[in-house]
Amino acid sequence: MYDNLKRVLIGKPLKNEESDGQKYGILWGLPILASDAISSVAYAGQEMLIVMLPVVGALAYGKLSLISGAIILLLMILTLSYRQTIEHYPNGGGAYIVAKDNLGTKAGVTAGAALCIDYILTVAVSVSSGVEQITSAFISLKPYTVIICIVMVGLLMVGNLRGIREASKIFGLPAYAFMLALLMLLIFGFAKIKGGYIPPEPTIKSLGEPITLILLLRAFSSGCTALTGVEAVSNAVPNFKTPSVKYAKTVLLLLSLIILVLFGGTSILANIYHVVPGDRAMLVLIAEQVFGHGFMYYYITITTFVILIMAANTAYSGFPLLLAVMAKEGFVPRQLSMKGDRLSYSNGILLLSSVAAVLIILFKADVTSLIGLYAIGVFISFTLSQAGMFRKWLIIKGKNWVPKAFINGLGALVTTVAVLIIAFTKFHQGAWIVIVLIPILILLMFKVKKHYENIRKQLKITPKLLERADINNKKYTNHVIVPLSSVNKSSVRALKYGTTISDNVTAFCVATDEESAAKIQEKYNELGTDIPLIIKYNPYRKVVEPLLDFIESAEYEYKKGDIITVILPQFVVKRWWQRLLHNQTGRFIERKLLKHKHIVVAVMPLQLND
Amino acid sequence: MYDNLKRVLIGKPLKNEESDGQKYGILWGLPILASDAISSVAYAGQEMLIVMLPVVGALAYGKLSLISGAIILLLMILTLSYRQTIEHYPNGGGAYIVAKDNLGTKAGVTAGAALCIDYILTVAVSVSSGVEQITSAFISLKPYTVIICIVMVGLLMVGNLRGIREASKIFGLPAYAFMLALLMLLIFGFAKIKGGYIPPEPTIKSLGEPITLILLLRAFSSGCTALTGVEAVSNAVPNFKTPSVKYAKTVLLLLSLIILVLFGGTSILANIYHVVPGDRAMLVLIAEQVFGHGFMYYYITITTFVILIMAANTAYSGFPLLLAVMAKEGFVPRQLSMKGDRLSYSNGILLLSSVAAVLIILFKADVTSLIGLYAIGVFISFTLSQAGMFRKWLIIKGKNWVPKAFINGLGALVTTVAVLIIAFTKFHQGAWIVIVLIPILILLMFKVKKHYENIRKQLKITPKLLERADINNKKYTNHVIVPLSSVNKSSVRALKYGTTISDNVTAFCVATDEESAAKIQEKYNELGTDIPLIIKYNPYRKVVEPLLDFIESAEYEYKKGDIITVILPQFVVKRWWQRLLHNQTGRFIERKLLKHKHIVVAVMPLQLND
Repeated sequence: MYDNLKRVLIGKPLKNEESDGQKYGILWGLPILASDAISSVAYAGQEMLIVMLPVVGALAYGKLSLISGAIILLLMILTLSYRQTIEHYPNGGGAYIVAKDNLGTKAGVTAGAALCIDYILTVAVSVSSGVEQITSAFISLKPYTVIICIVMVGLLMVGNLRGIREASKIFGLPAYAFMLALLMLLIFGFAKIKGGYIPPEPTIKSLGEPITLILLLRAFSSGCTALTGVEAVSNAVPNFKTPSVKYAKTVLLLLSLIILVLFGGTSILANIYHVVPGDRAMLVLIAEQVFGHGFMYYYITITTFVILIMAANTAYSGFPLLLAVMAKEGFVPRQLSMKGDRLSYSNGILLLSSVAAVLIILFKADVTSLIGLYAIGVFISFTLSQAGMFRKWLIIKGKNWVPKAFINGLGALVTTVAVLIIAFTKFHQGAWIVIVLIPILILLMFKVKKHYENIRKQLKITPKLLERADINNKKYTNHVIVPLSSVNKSSVRALKYGTTISDNVTAFCVATDEESAAKIQEKYNELGTDIPLIIKYNPYRKVVEPLLDFIESAEYEYKKGDIITVILPQFVVKRWWQRLLHNQTGRFIERKLLKHKHIVVAVMPLQLND
Repeated sequence: MYDNLKRVLIGKPLKNEESDGQKYGILWGLPILASDAISSVAYAGQEMLIVMLPVVGALAYGKLSLISGAIILLLMILTLSYRQTIEHYPNGGGAYIVAKDNLGTKAGVTAGAALCIDYILTVAVSVSSGVEQITSAFISLKPYTVIICIVMVGLLMVGNLRGIREASKIFGLPAYAFMLALLMLLIFGFAKIKGGYIPPEPTIKSLGEPITLILLLRAFSSGCTALTGVEAVSNAVPNFKTPSVKYAKTVLLLLSLIILVLFGGTSILANIYHVVPGDRAMLVLIAEQVFGHGFMYYYITITTFVILIMAANTAYSGFPLLLAVMAKEGFVPRQLSMKGDRLSYSNGILLLSSVAAVLIILFKADVTSLIGLYAIGVFISFTLSQAGMFRKWLIIKGKNWVPKAFINGLGALVTTVAVLIIAFTKFHQGAWIVIVLIPILILLMFKVKKHYENIRKQLKITPKLLERADINNKKYTNHVIVPLSSVNKSSVRALKYGTTISDNVTAFCVATDEESAAKIQEKYNELGTDIPLIIKYNPYRKVVEPLLDFIESAEYEYKKGDIITVILPQFVVKRWWQRLLHNQTGRFIERKLLKHKHIVVAVMPLQLND
């Protein structure tokens, strides 16, 4: 039943060799990887206004373009920086790999931890903002915001479990539709003003205070979220068709140009049209003024919603890949490096979906609340990545190393400043959570690494071990114990199997009172076997403890190095619900017994019809 | 960790022999078993008013005492009937046993299904009503109603997992406190009126329609909930100290007298004081008028709350016991008949708690909504129980059988009429759910019974089976397969164990490509063993399917009746979190393999340090 459901939801298994066909070129690579950065147009500008409007009122509009300009400058520097990264790291891994290679393991793991948090927030913020667009246009849906968000995360999860290529086809076209939508908004928006349209005066409840530096910096911190997603391209270089470096660099450049036009343009429009976001989303409010409640209004709303869902999808490309890289090096559980039936990293996808869903529920899908946690993770990884590249040039030098080092050094410097600004101005708005969480994650990752290292050492085959084991000539001395709760067909089979694998078989039974003991003994005698039956009393109706006590007692003879095989009969029923009708104590006993190294548990099935 | 938590919550394990000491006499038996019936004073009268007030307005008050009188008459008949039941069924089991003994299995199972539903609703209704008392006095708690209810169910669960006697001590005294509280309310309530107090005119929004028969019957149906819980005493006879029959009969009689006084008295008070329940509970409203917001007001509110929680506790005595009886006969899963560490039927307690919690959440802890589902289950079981007793007298006859048969016959008749009235008048208010659910439950119970019967037959040891098995002389032919994913210390142990239990050992490995196959083969060769290694390719990275294919292929030789032992090495780690760092595929492989009857899975542990 589970298998069928899985097939319907995620499709038939793909072979390993089909992996290569799932890669993409510029046409599909751009919409998939760019959507995170492009879509932030929907919230970055809006959140800057939400910071400033309640404090300084209409004065905010004038400052919007100024701060947006600063952010676009930052984007330019990052784009140049990251093109150099792509060139030198064609196998991807982004900030994690770059920091690890050039600044050491600790810096790498720090970048990894920061990125993990970033990806999760990308999903939470993008989905919440996407649904906010819809509820801004269809206000009756507002009460269902959280539920709609969770459904969206569910769809993303299923879509991504189906594999990469199908994802690009599903999410490819709407990205272009969104770019077209915003381009139309810009063109008609500016044309309308040229045509003599005068926007209504905004009604803003504000404190009417003067503009302060700290306020501008807080707005800047919110606006920095516009740059999240730029690094996705450098992480995903191996997902491109060959020549992947060339494709990736082109996609990154295109991406930056698109952000420049859309983010810059909408900031200016918001300024001109004097929109007041809060209950409703900024882009929807601008579209309402430019187009009224016509086709274009709904077209913009819906494509914005879709691009934001796609942005969340970007994280579904990046997060599992990052974890797979880190898992191969032992910093996160190994299961995260295994591809599922459909060649996607299923465990990473499931992890991302569930944590993002929890965040959405905790923060009630409120973009302004979530934005406080966002950006800091990304900017920490930006900084480490740029610093890593900077250090690389200092060491390897090579052709034109000075300008290259200058670009990456500048990148590292400006992003460091941004990290400090965000940490300081957003501390109380949620940044503290991330600041606390990152060191904890780093600690855990090193603990996991250490565990795997220890295990590897313990499992290693040494010549001494081989010599002592002497597989070909030496055997274990094997004792068998068959625990019985009643005497039936499966006991007969278990006892017979016992005599097959050992000459030393004991049947063992725990009774709560003498009456039931006598009953068992009588039925056992009917079997006519010469295998001894040991009956122990236990008032607590426990099985494992008396068995272990018996094994360790003087009554039972075994030497160090011997193996004791405990045979557990298990009923195998035809239908899943019938399993509910039988004790699952077998599993429990198995786990307790396996804690003792000299015990092997042999589970002997008995198939039952209805 | 789990073990420690369990100890703190539910206490240390009790021995079987301690079971007897947990029984109770009249002093503790009365409050524990009576609370369900007594506490219904808090909602039965109130719900009658809620049915009538909106339709007929103040006219309702006059009819309240009339309907209450009818219900008290019903109570008298039931009490006489049930005293006869207790006498003839000292081992308890109530309606289920009585119906089964005298009317056949189907009637018994029907009564059992009806009682199951009744017990669950007892918890849901009593807890919801209890919390309603509190939120009526402390109105600021109203928004947290559902959460408080769930916490209460949780406390009841933990309390009952700790065992019977401690439950009686915790819940004993407050029951008397409640009786005292209501007695005070009656005395001061009547005294205040005698003293000349004139209650304010009620402000009722009503349709002002005339009183119709159907309306009176609907009110009667709601009022019938006052009688739920009367049967608890006859179910729990074996929980009394010896002489248990005498104690039980006395408790039942005392119980009826107390209901008569409290239910009758408060109905009259509600009539005199013209209270309008709905947003706030009836008893709290009466207490407010009689005592104002003084000590007695809060005393009554809180003791009412506590007695209602105790009423829910009654179901915690009855439900698990009923299920244990039914489980022993195979109608419900066997696990429900097993006593936990503290000698309580843990699984029944957990089941009751979870279903009641779900109901409370679904119905938002609204007493009026839940009451629509209540009563019908109880009255079906009343009817079957009385009818069973009636039939008993017709068959066994004996001393004074005619008046005895008359009493039980009358009981059966009036309860049948009540069932029809409730089913008809409350159909749309939720009774339909129960009417649909009971046949489904009955069907399931018979299905479970049939499954256990089939299993019993299949497990039976026949002389033919013994002869064919010939445990002492014949052995299985045992083949061993050791699946490897890599070559390490645990592989060495598994291979050595394989040669210990069979002369026919094969190592088996699934590779995704030739490169990894060559690597494994090379490492395997270093072991220097003569056990053959079979490598199969599987592009889907699966293990079980290629292994089963290999076993069934011509390449692998085995005969029908042979056993194939598959040895699975398993890492056993020290700390629980480390388990998350290792594949749990072993479990999965084990389950798939065990579906094949010729395969035994031997799990060989390897203990790892950190």
